[in-house]
Amino acid sequence: MDLKQYIAAVKDFPKEGILFRDITPLMLNGDAYKFAADAFTIFAKEKGATVIVGPEARGFIFGCPVAVNLSIGFAPVRKPGKLPRESVTVSYDLEYGSNSLSLHADAIKKGDKVVIIDDLLATGGTMQATIELVERLGGEVVGLCFLIELDDLEGRKLLKNYDVKTLIHY
Amino acid sequence: MDLKQYIAAVKDFPKEGILFRDITPLMLNGDAYKFAADAFTIFAKEKGATVIVGPEARGFIFGCPVAVNLSIGFAPVRKPGKLPRESVTVSYDLEYGSNSLSLHADAIKKGDKVVIIDDLLATGGTMQATIELVERLGGEVVGLCFLIELDDLEGRKLLKNYDVKTLIHY
Repeated sequence: MDLKQYIAAVKDFPKEGILFRDITPLMLNGDAYKFAADAFTIFAKEKGATVIVGPEARGFIFGCPVAVNLSIGFAPVRKPGKLPRESVTVSYDLEYGSNSLSLHADAIKKGDKVVIIDDLLATGGTMQATIELVERLGGEVVGLCFLIELDDLEGRKLLKNYDVKTLIHY
Repeated sequence: MDLKQYIAAVKDFPKEGILFRDITPLMLNGDAYKFAADAFTIFAKEKGATVIVGPEARGFIFGCPVAVNLSIGFAPVRKPGKLPRESVTVSYDLEYGSNSLSLHADAIKKGDKVVIIDDLLATGGTMQATIELVERLGGEVVGLCFLIELDDLEGRKLLKNYDVKTLIHY
């Protein structure tokens, strides 16, 4: 299935000079959405995933269906202050400013095999922070899934020690 | 399945005096998560849903798996500024201050049968705003799903014209 036809290109969003890849048309097409979710499900199953992790909010879009498909747990990575119980937090730099992400301390058990799922791989900062959260809790990151990868930004260089599955390249 | 055993009660979160119902233990248990998602899937199928709508971020947790289970589309309701294309927006009052929610204008087509899914029914304000967005675009709201309903807050009174499915009551 040619998934690219379901991705909208939006100029100058969220700011001038950015060509935003909008995945909502893909999500709105039941066949395309299921096709993508099934591809990640097969990958996560092959990797022996015991838990799926996804950063909010767009990491939930594919991560949650994959967890349900495999009858395994899903652990949300959220911005600080959103998770109510004891959490680990990582801060990382963005082009302008910085960002922090948190994960419940009991979300990952030592030896868990974790597949992390997000919608987009750009510079890789969000994914690197998410990996750090999982590994700090003793989880083994057995794979990373992205619907879209922006090849020019070379985010994959940061992730070279991991097995990456991407469905759409730009 | 007794789903309540997978809900953590967290005192004084996000502020003093609030008893927060934390659904992340349920999401982390693959069987419980699938059980809940399957219950909503059956409901949405019976209602003839053609599209699932969910408000960010926690509405994605069950809404996305249900859409994938039924091979139908999912339309995200997000805070203003997050959706890149032409959108409709509704503002509503909270206990302190107000909130706004947006939906892409092309997310719902006239005659779509929509099931809206969120994690929690409290006062019903978020759900009422989401219904308004869907109906403004010509969609028919055929059902509402919540994992948890806080009965004392009587959110259901606001939603009395709709068919509501709740799995856990407090």
